[in-house]
Amino acid sequence: MATQGQVITCKAAVAWEANKPLVIEDVQVAPPQAGEVRIKILFTALCHTDAYTWSGKDPEGLFPCILGHEAAGIVESVGEGVTEVQPGDHVIPCYQAECKECKFCKSGKTNLCGKVRAATGVGVMLSDRKSRFSIDGKPIYHFMGTSTFSQYTVVHDVSVAKIDPHAPLEKVCLLGCGVPTGLGAVWNTAKVEAGSTVAIFGLGTVGLAVAEGAKTAGASRIIGIDIDSKKYEIGKNFGITEFVNPKDHEKPIQQVIIDLTDGGVDYSFECIGNVQLMRAALECCHKGWGTSVIVGVAASGQEISTRPFQLVTGRVWKGTAFGGFKSRSQVPLLVDKYMHKEIKVDEYVTHQLTLAEINKAFDLMHEGGCLRCVLDVHP
Amino acid sequence: MATQGQVITCKAAVAWEANKPLVIEDVQVAPPQAGEVRIKILFTALCHTDAYTWSGKDPEGLFPCILGHEAAGIVESVGEGVTEVQPGDHVIPCYQAECKECKFCKSGKTNLCGKVRAATGVGVMLSDRKSRFSIDGKPIYHFMGTSTFSQYTVVHDVSVAKIDPHAPLEKVCLLGCGVPTGLGAVWNTAKVEAGSTVAIFGLGTVGLAVAEGAKTAGASRIIGIDIDSKKYEIGKNFGITEFVNPKDHEKPIQQVIIDLTDGGVDYSFECIGNVQLMRAALECCHKGWGTSVIVGVAASGQEISTRPFQLVTGRVWKGTAFGGFKSRSQVPLLVDKYMHKEIKVDEYVTHQLTLAEINKAFDLMHEGGCLRCVLDVHP
Repeated sequence: MATQGQVITCKAAVAWEANKPLVIEDVQVAPPQAGEVRIKILFTALCHTDAYTWSGKDPEGLFPCILGHEAAGIVESVGEGVTEVQPGDHVIPCYQAECKECKFCKSGKTNLCGKVRAATGVGVMLSDRKSRFSIDGKPIYHFMGTSTFSQYTVVHDVSVAKIDPHAPLEKVCLLGCGVPTGLGAVWNTAKVEAGSTVAIFGLGTVGLAVAEGAKTAGASRIIGIDIDSKKYEIGKNFGITEFVNPKDHEKPIQQVIIDLTDGGVDYSFECIGNVQLMRAALECCHKGWGTSVIVGVAASGQEISTRPFQLVTGRVWKGTAFGGFKSRSQVPLLVDKYMHKEIKVDEYVTHQLTLAEINKAFDLMHEGGCLRCVLDVHP
Repeated sequence: MATQGQVITCKAAVAWEANKPLVIEDVQVAPPQAGEVRIKILFTALCHTDAYTWSGKDPEGLFPCILGHEAAGIVESVGEGVTEVQPGDHVIPCYQAECKECKFCKSGKTNLCGKVRAATGVGVMLSDRKSRFSIDGKPIYHFMGTSTFSQYTVVHDVSVAKIDPHAPLEKVCLLGCGVPTGLGAVWNTAKVEAGSTVAIFGLGTVGLAVAEGAKTAGASRIIGIDIDSKKYEIGKNFGITEFVNPKDHEKPIQQVIIDLTDGGVDYSFECIGNVQLMRAALECCHKGWGTSVIVGVAASGQEISTRPFQLVTGRVWKGTAFGGFKSRSQVPLLVDKYMHKEIKVDEYVTHQLTLAEINKAFDLMHEGGCLRCVLDVHP
């Protein structure tokens, strides 16, 4: 391509400082160095983690930066030594890398590859500890190793999943974060068996994906819990069989669930990031075997607590990141499942806007009717 | 037997009130009713749970009562309908029942049988909600469904494990609590694999049994943690390969273990009942897969806490009660393992006294050199 090896100037939504509207700027995107890939982002969705860092509550948030981590695009160029993707490949950038070489990747026990984390955690690339984004020479930090609120981004090669070129990018961009997180929490982390009872705290995209995962796993009861009762109708499409609004009850929500289920559920999932609900989710599990999975991301510094008796009497407390999926290996398989109509994706896309309208998209996130808003990055 | 169907008057150590020395009294022990078994206790050991309730810190503790739950004896008589044991059988009373019929027993997922718990939790027998112990007509509460600090006790038939009559009761009485708890925490709850690294917080009987369990499971490193450095020499006999005294370090103990093990251990076990150490035990586990098992019993009202990030990044928090062993089914198998020299028991018996010396035995528990003190109940 004509742009290969060149700096590309393109549009990106820059977060100049916490909690201030993003600004669409002309950004310079440097060419990929060894082991890096430059991607033309075609579609990106917004996720609550973007909003969290943008809010300034994330102590590791660095500004100015380019947020965004749930997207899809096409490889524009690759740096030296990159063999697994080439220009023109359709890809999903993955905030959770998979190098296949580190002790995490080799363990067979986790998806938490550690290879590039030290760099992506501080907004730079691994090789030279610098950013590939700049505006008039001033560097702009990367975010989560993805920075998809930009027409072009540079990521590490271990963070790129090559997918079926026939997949609609405006849909499968969702397979970069929320949907796999929910499905994987059920399939990989909890390993829900057929006939199980399940409680889901929070029916946003992740919670609904948990419901779908539980349904495909054969769960017998899937109880949705949300303070917005409109979520029941939406949830039914994803597998929710019963609904509880904590506002309708005087009793603590864990007791409501215990009473509903003769002692508690087999599996529970917290999909909000609220530490009080993480406790409730654990405590509504059945004595002897109930397993609770923390899926939501709590604000920094917050802690979970419970009486140790809850664990001594057989409950198990776990968590999941990206649903335990190995990103480069398994995201392409999720895309294939979508293409074979084995998992939903389209149903989560409730709004479509353009990159220029990104601030409106952030506003939409706080409205009950919005699951995912997908931005067209090159309208 | 001549005593069958009769009230037996015998010696028992009565806890009249919290934190006051036990008193050896002549106690009347009523005959077993339907579904009950009267056992002549020959040997009993002391465990920290006895001391905890005796201390008055257990809000569920009831006085006056007869404590004790780690013992062995011979069936004296059985009530109507009892078929699985008969007079003369050698048995271990089990504070964790196993009815084989309740939803817990049938689940295949837990050992926490619920059949008699509502009664044993409040110091009485299930059938009539009364005690079988009295002194001059005044009832004395049962404890944990076992009350083994008595020459005779009455237990539910679901709480009796029939064992090899050749097993030395003065040793295998230990298989009523501490040793199975430690072994089972490793084998049943954590399921430690060969080559794993293990950290054990607290090297009393339970912690040492964890070490032995880890050794037989093929763990590659077994790190003992105790504030009494003399425990290292003792611990070596049970499989401890490294020792850390938190008093020797300025850093938090979890950081010391993380540094020692290139990121943390695969499995950790808290065997003390200290909620701060439960947190440390979780946090010294390796990111991605480390599993921490709470074995110790914390004081009432205390809570564990941590940042949810610890779980989201792959650590698992569990607990265990009686090591997950199904009591009636598996205690006899543990006795067989002991008889075949596959597990240690003798090595935990550091002191031998008589029932009359029980207060001295409680004093010994707080001394570093004491693991288990076994009382001869009919000297």
